[in-house]
Amino acid sequence: MNLSQFRKHYEPLIQKEMTALIDSLAVPQSLKEAMNYSLQAGGKRIRPILLLAVLEEFGIQHPDALKVAAAIEMIHTYSLIHDDLPSMDDDDLRRGMPTNHVVYGEALAILAGDALLTYSFGIVARLEHVSSDDKIRLIDLMSVSSGAEGMVGGQVLDIEGEEKKLTLEELEQVHRLKTGALLTYSILAGAILAQAAAEEIMALSRFGEHLGLAFQIQDDILDVTGTSEELGKTAGKDETSEKSTYPSLLTLPKAKEKLEFHATEALSALNSLNGEPALLRELTELIVQRKN
Amino acid sequence: MNLSQFRKHYEPLIQKEMTALIDSLAVPQSLKEAMNYSLQAGGKRIRPILLLAVLEEFGIQHPDALKVAAAIEMIHTYSLIHDDLPSMDDDDLRRGMPTNHVVYGEALAILAGDALLTYSFGIVARLEHVSSDDKIRLIDLMSVSSGAEGMVGGQVLDIEGEEKKLTLEELEQVHRLKTGALLTYSILAGAILAQAAAEEIMALSRFGEHLGLAFQIQDDILDVTGTSEELGKTAGKDETSEKSTYPSLLTLPKAKEKLEFHATEALSALNSLNGEPALLRELTELIVQRKN
Repeated sequence: MNLSQFRKHYEPLIQKEMTALIDSLAVPQSLKEAMNYSLQAGGKRIRPILLLAVLEEFGIQHPDALKVAAAIEMIHTYSLIHDDLPSMDDDDLRRGMPTNHVVYGEALAILAGDALLTYSFGIVARLEHVSSDDKIRLIDLMSVSSGAEGMVGGQVLDIEGEEKKLTLEELEQVHRLKTGALLTYSILAGAILAQAAAEEIMALSRFGEHLGLAFQIQDDILDVTGTSEELGKTAGKDETSEKSTYPSLLTLPKAKEKLEFHATEALSALNSLNGEPALLRELTELIVQRKN
Repeated sequence: MNLSQFRKHYEPLIQKEMTALIDSLAVPQSLKEAMNYSLQAGGKRIRPILLLAVLEEFGIQHPDALKVAAAIEMIHTYSLIHDDLPSMDDDDLRRGMPTNHVVYGEALAILAGDALLTYSFGIVARLEHVSSDDKIRLIDLMSVSSGAEGMVGGQVLDIEGEEKKLTLEELEQVHRLKTGALLTYSILAGAILAQAAAEEIMALSRFGEHLGLAFQIQDDILDVTGTSEELGKTAGKDETSEKSTYPSLLTLPKAKEKLEFHATEALSALNSLNGEPALLRELTELIVQRKN
């Protein structure tokens, strides 16, 4: 299976898993709808696909893989819901659709985010085919990568960075935390489920780090070069808001060089794995070449 | 030790534990401050004290008890930060101090809440003196009691209830979820750390349920009978906002009867425990008689 077939196969399964997980909750209908709305709004499902691709490279069919993938996508989705709030990025449009608070109001959007985050930990705690020790590893890393020392911390730095010109180092730190941490977690979660050896986990961690930066640099580049239609969100927003980005700090050609550098490093990290991780290579290419 | 001595002994230790846990985070200074601000704003620490009291009744000094107590108080605190937001209850004052978003702005308040919630799961995952199996039990129940099927769901019902007159049954469901679930969790977490037997966990669960309702009915009563100074928050707010409360649905004397009923049921649940759980009895009395 190439990446395109792999995604075509798994994307509906990821969606189905998330829907089933939300459906199984005995909760107020409005909350269920608000949680589901953003989970069903599409998106690239890069994090679940990364986790599943890692397992595929290890040749493992894990019966709980989709659940963990769904839990990670829920964390990603909660972060988008909160980021889009008026007091944060104030975005009305996400993936071409009205954002959660536009549809459900701010209060329910905040609570739907809280609920998705909280549920993710419960989903992992209740996995049926993973040892308690491995569940604890998954939960520990999940908390670090999505919390104050990871994604949430990155969002704080991102907001604070809007008020000043960042150095390249500071910008990289924002991205490492805001986007990189959860992307890397997706990869490591796959490795944990695959019972990967320590050196393989190290290599995948390095892969994840560079992939995360490449992903974010491409995001910055697309904001300059893409159209709102392609992106499904307002293009050129960074420039209007005078936000520090790779193109603004480095110029567009240099940002593209930087993107190329991290993509190459990501691919080279894969060389230390046994076997030929074709899907992960293709995913790296996809992230570099994506249009949205 | 009676309850007053017990609280005097443990309250500074709980505070110290929370401070140490936040200090150990490598996170942006502003985020650390916002997280700490609400944790240091005082409060009754009822949830940590409940957990510690349960362990005391079982005669157990558990080296990780304060960490779990701190994690639960962080979840409670995150819920207060989010509840106080302008789009939710819009409270400027909490425990006699400006609320988190008044001091740090909405964005940072939301993120500080997110970070506290996420960290709580990590704290439990990293306990050093609890088996992975028991950590998973703690995390599973933590997720249920604080998430969509617990506290967050309760907050949704509470907000929706503001727009209509609730039945007594609906009001009870709001409280069961919004306040009761995490209170009960505090008790059960103590029981899990104490390796309590199944029937003891059942009894404590029943105790927690009635205690939670008693707690909330007293909250409703205090809103009518207390002063803002005593409460550290605006008194009479429920009446002004025409919110369904026990006094408004039942009249004040009947609400007091209901409070007495749940307090009695809570105490009677304790009878099935071995030994004489003096602290938990005193705590029940305290919750019924509190002025804030």
